[in-house]
Amino acid sequence: MCELLGMNCNVPTDICFSFSGFQQRGGGTGVHRDGWGIAFFEGKGARLFLDPEPSVNSAIAQLVSQYPIRSRNVIAHIRKATHGSVRLENTHPFMRELWGHHWIFAHNGKMPDFYPELNGSFTPVGDTDSERVFCWLLENLRTRFGQIMPDRLTLLHTLRELTLRIADQGILNFLLSNGDCLFAHCSERLHYLVRRAPFSVAHLKDQDITVDFSELTRPNDRVAIIATLPLTDNETWLNMAAGTLWLFYDGEAVECVETHPAGRLGR
Amino acid sequence: MCELLGMNCNVPTDICFSFSGFQQRGGGTGVHRDGWGIAFFEGKGARLFLDPEPSVNSAIAQLVSQYPIRSRNVIAHIRKATHGSVRLENTHPFMRELWGHHWIFAHNGKMPDFYPELNGSFTPVGDTDSERVFCWLLENLRTRFGQIMPDRLTLLHTLRELTLRIADQGILNFLLSNGDCLFAHCSERLHYLVRRAPFSVAHLKDQDITVDFSELTRPNDRVAIIATLPLTDNETWLNMAAGTLWLFYDGEAVECVETHPAGRLGR
Repeated sequence: MCELLGMNCNVPTDICFSFSGFQQRGGGTGVHRDGWGIAFFEGKGARLFLDPEPSVNSAIAQLVSQYPIRSRNVIAHIRKATHGSVRLENTHPFMRELWGHHWIFAHNGKMPDFYPELNGSFTPVGDTDSERVFCWLLENLRTRFGQIMPDRLTLLHTLRELTLRIADQGILNFLLSNGDCLFAHCSERLHYLVRRAPFSVAHLKDQDITVDFSELTRPNDRVAIIATLPLTDNETWLNMAAGTLWLFYDGEAVECVETHPAGRLGR
Repeated sequence: MCELLGMNCNVPTDICFSFSGFQQRGGGTGVHRDGWGIAFFEGKGARLFLDPEPSVNSAIAQLVSQYPIRSRNVIAHIRKATHGSVRLENTHPFMRELWGHHWIFAHNGKMPDFYPELNGSFTPVGDTDSERVFCWLLENLRTRFGQIMPDRLTLLHTLRELTLRIADQGILNFLLSNGDCLFAHCSERLHYLVRRAPFSVAHLKDQDITVDFSELTRPNDRVAIIATLPLTDNETWLNMAAGTLWLFYDGEAVECVETHPAGRLGR
């Protein structure tokens, strides 16, 4: 299994603090040694850093943890390979373009028997179940909406419907962003918090690093952090319910919809 | 205008030496201050480093010039913006997936009136003429060959035909790679050399750095370097003729075809 880290903000913010803790789990305080990656949106552009090395040893991860790249949407991933070998093309997050926007996707879970028929508009480069899910989601979005990107809520409800169609085939925690908003699906385990005024001090779980956000922020700043497991030990992280799909926009959890097949909840 | 740098090799090779010289031209010895980028293929995977900052000042460029990433196909670009603002989404190289392979493209030149009708399969994210050319090339390749990637020579001749259709609309020096081979189009200015045994000493033009390749190579290594302007001052660079499209594979210029509209050569 893997771990996910996402950030969605109302102003461009760097993720150095959270990433420093997350990075330790890639071979240091955690077992996710099989590569790591992080994607930053800056406007419509995206920067993607990928490395099949453990993040705790990676010169590129070291740069990323120290070099403040300000972004409103970030997705990061550390990998413990369960499906697909340890290779660059199997390293998350994955990136594709749809509707003139980059889309970034990272997955934690397993969908080992998910081999959808794809029409060639998005084809996996590597051999992970995760990239197959991503290609299938984008193909379905394009098929549904043609050449025009729908609004955020329409995207959320369409992603819910698509997720429902495949969620019973495995474990599907994922983060997905088009640079405007961030979708987070919890099929098993995912947490989040929103930092907003009054800002206070946060202390990492995985390294003895403390930050006083009140010194670094302006009163209207708002930052949502989504992570497989809480990154700090003195803040309140919300445990996202299994079978929920969330829309984060402008640093807030704007909407949450259920993705349980009706039968599984006994309704 | 911009400058291009490409590398195609028969064994994974790092580009630290050539990139160190190239990097200086992005705001140091050259005027190309409007961003830079570099893409490395490793197997089917690709790493793309992009920065809208001048390469000479960039912490990421510094890392790339010192961190040996071994690759058989590399494309780099330093930008002097002529069309499209200085933003991350306008920074070359551009990346898309086609046929389950990443494709990387960088352009030097200008195609200011090139606004093709696109069917939505590849849509520019930024507003450069270069990304429009890239999307148009990939759309045409997919339309022509459906879901199966043709062989290298078929790709070369198809790219020649496509380039011929648009070459009279501007200046179109480009590098394009799918990780297997590298295509280089010279509409105006491009040079290359092949380093092979017996290897000797090379000295950069833009920095006082010398490398003795005989100490770093094995007898069968073969590395083609393609650059807008020669990067070293003690090696023989071949001046590629205007109106030629080249296929580089395994560190050699395998094939070269003309891309002059027949009329322009007076045939």
